[in-house]
Amino acid sequence: MKKLLSLCLCTSLSLSFALQADEKLMTASKKPIKNVIMIVGDGMGPAFTTAYRYYNDDPNTPEIEETVFDRHLVGLNSTYPAPISGYVTDSAAGATALATGIKSYNGAISVDVDKKPLKTVLQHAKTLGKKTGVVVTSQVNHATPASYITHNESRRNYDAIADSYIDNGINIDLLLGGGTKYFIREDRNLVEEFKEKGFQYVDNYEQLTSIKKEEPLLGLFAPVGLPWSLDDSNKHRLSEMTKIATEQLENKNGYFMLIEASQVDWAGHSNDIASAMAEMDDLAKTLIYLEQYVEQNPDTLVVLTADHSTGGLTLGSDGEYKWQPSVFKGMTQSISAIAQFIAEKEFTAEQLATMLTFALTDEQLSQLHSIKQDESEKITKPQLTRQLYKKLNQFVSAKSFTGWTTGGHTGIDVPVFAFGKGFEKFQNKTDNTDIAKIIFTIL
Amino acid sequence: MKKLLSLCLCTSLSLSFALQADEKLMTASKKPIKNVIMIVGDGMGPAFTTAYRYYNDDPNTPEIEETVFDRHLVGLNSTYPAPISGYVTDSAAGATALATGIKSYNGAISVDVDKKPLKTVLQHAKTLGKKTGVVVTSQVNHATPASYITHNESRRNYDAIADSYIDNGINIDLLLGGGTKYFIREDRNLVEEFKEKGFQYVDNYEQLTSIKKEEPLLGLFAPVGLPWSLDDSNKHRLSEMTKIATEQLENKNGYFMLIEASQVDWAGHSNDIASAMAEMDDLAKTLIYLEQYVEQNPDTLVVLTADHSTGGLTLGSDGEYKWQPSVFKGMTQSISAIAQFIAEKEFTAEQLATMLTFALTDEQLSQLHSIKQDESEKITKPQLTRQLYKKLNQFVSAKSFTGWTTGGHTGIDVPVFAFGKGFEKFQNKTDNTDIAKIIFTIL
Ligand SMILES: [Zn+2]
Ligand SMILES: [Zn+2]
Repeated sequence: MKKLLSLCLCTSLSLSFALQADEKLMTASKKPIKNVIMIVGDGMGPAFTTAYRYYNDDPNTPEIEETVFDRHLVGLNSTYPAPISGYVTDSAAGATALATGIKSYNGAISVDVDKKPLKTVLQHAKTLGKKTGVVVTSQVNHATPASYITHNESRRNYDAIADSYIDNGINIDLLLGGGTKYFIREDRNLVEEFKEKGFQYVDNYEQLTSIKKEEPLLGLFAPVGLPWSLDDSNKHRLSEMTKIATEQLENKNGYFMLIEASQVDWAGHSNDIASAMAEMDDLAKTLIYLEQYVEQNPDTLVVLTADHSTGGLTLGSDGEYKWQPSVFKGMTQSISAIAQFIAEKEFTAEQLATMLTFALTDEQLSQLHSIKQDESEKITKPQLTRQLYKKLNQFVSAKSFTGWTTGGHTGIDVPVFAFGKGFEKFQNKTDNTDIAKIIFTIL
Repeated sequence: MKKLLSLCLCTSLSLSFALQADEKLMTASKKPIKNVIMIVGDGMGPAFTTAYRYYNDDPNTPEIEETVFDRHLVGLNSTYPAPISGYVTDSAAGATALATGIKSYNGAISVDVDKKPLKTVLQHAKTLGKKTGVVVTSQVNHATPASYITHNESRRNYDAIADSYIDNGINIDLLLGGGTKYFIREDRNLVEEFKEKGFQYVDNYEQLTSIKKEEPLLGLFAPVGLPWSLDDSNKHRLSEMTKIATEQLENKNGYFMLIEASQVDWAGHSNDIASAMAEMDDLAKTLIYLEQYVEQNPDTLVVLTADHSTGGLTLGSDGEYKWQPSVFKGMTQSISAIAQFIAEKEFTAEQLATMLTFALTDEQLSQLHSIKQDESEKITKPQLTRQLYKKLNQFVSAKSFTGWTTGGHTGIDVPVFAFGKGFEKFQNKTDNTDIAKIIFTIL
């Protein structure tokens, strides 16, 4: 409600004052938007932002604390892909729509349904002399970042996508995330090639504090995606990388930056509510940092939306009018890490209770043991870990009354959040293609 | 996006013109809002309004048609009840918050956590000399309408709630919905009492066309709730009743009206996607009528939200990136009616395929037959019908890739739609209590 006040001034004040306010508004609106920060919460449907409010709630206060998402919600966004792919999008078609303003088929990396390349807002910003940056928690050549940087007929061509970041002419000044597996290969070392083009390279978070402002930056902190927030050396690595990126990209022509909270989606695919909320917490911290940044840099626009929702998350399940995030809020390592531990070692009920922060029932413990007994016979260690991971997630979901309907995506509209200069352009109902169209107009 | 244009005029036009526009806006804003139409889509979380877009889509056109919901979305609303009831609300606490601006316990009918009565927006409108009306597809003494009209410590006290509509002093000029079971009882005939108080009474939709404008109106069209939209003699009975109600309530002091699409919730509880979409279609038609009404009566405000989401509906399930409403879009009777038919009669696979508009597999048919064979032994006819209804809904959901997680409610934020005078007051993130607070201010 507060946001509308400045726009409504003219209706509520005296005419003469309204005229002054008008003059002020018009002067402000003539100054162009200098920096555009686009954030994608991959898989972050409306259940995830709602869930975060209750996960974040301090049970020792009578009220439910407002979240940074609550402060900046402006509308909902439809996510359907090109007709050939039905009503439910994947991350590639979703990111293509958000980056180019055109709907394509599931799997497309900023190519249209005829596989012709489409101009992206990041590419456009670069041609206008702005700096560009990408900060993600997935590998930097994953569907969403790739759809802003490059073009490919399939998201699965990971090596080709990474190669194209050099081969098509470098259009980014900053690239932070995971992906050494694709950048340092037997057949090609892209990290060396980036260095030859003048990039400084870092491969751990500590090095980020001593980088040079003058040189473009490549940072790859993991072979593929970064570790889960819960397991990473820095649980708020997205907010930390974002802070560095804003400082690094700041320049007189402005910048376009894509930030992706990539692993909200991955937690959704695994029906892993504990990691979903931990990844949301890193995203919330990122937004809170950007609130301060926009206060100091009022010519900056921040827009956050999702490409789709993942997992069919619901708060409440099996007839119970309850959702209990306290079940998993205190966990200090991911369910995935716990699954790996019990796959590799003998474990006691007490050890497991400490890790999970709640005790399993005897029936649940025996289910885990019977999965482990199967092991000796035919399944591989990674398969065993996956089965234990799945089972532990089911226990956590059941105890917290968390519902899921799929290991894939769903078609629900996703929330849009915006603040800073021009935020009101994203209000009410938008389509994923509108997000790119509005950003093209702004640039 | 369009809606903001009028507010933004001042920022985009020349100063002198902006001044004129301002003058116009200020004159307009000084006129009070005369009529307030509050609509509750019971159980209508964001998955329901998204689903309706794809259900409503004409597959013969390349684009996906915009819905009336898309045109008027303004934000999302948090629905949590008083702390004693956790994060997931029931319809009583939800309606209490929407009607009074105060959160209470699940089950409360406009009483606070100490069971003290709370003033409702409908009651307040009445004391201000406005007419008041209630139009629902449930019984008129169900949780949502009751929370606007009266007070009770429990939604389950159906008779007492109905009695209070007379005993507390009649505060409504129009009451349309179901509920003869509660209004014409052995111990008391409330219909006769309403007539004695000067009400005209109707009990079928046809009579609605010949009512007198001067007299208050009671219309009860079913013993409890109205039939499912798909089975009713008028599939768009909510829109039809709403049309009559606006004509009936129109007066120089204005009116407050509550409309509830009650059975979206009931379909959600039954995980019945076919009826959920048919009820949404009746609600959509109601909104489309109100768009025209507001055009002719621009001093009217229309606000639509939900009290909560029901069923944990998701578009997509079981790993498939698909949602296929064509599976059930052509049905001409409810799944509930089909269940009743096959519970009572011998049926062929062909008959069932005609009713469902798709053929069941042999495996599915044999599941139905084995439920029927159980019958002879111990279950009652209504139990048998319920079991067949549940099973048929599972078949429809599986074929259309519709996911559900519960027979109860979930905690997700719900969408808010608003148009007409003052719509912008409901933009962005609101809480259910804000809806009542804003309406109190408007009145
Ligand atoms: Zn995904
Ligand atoms: Zn309900």
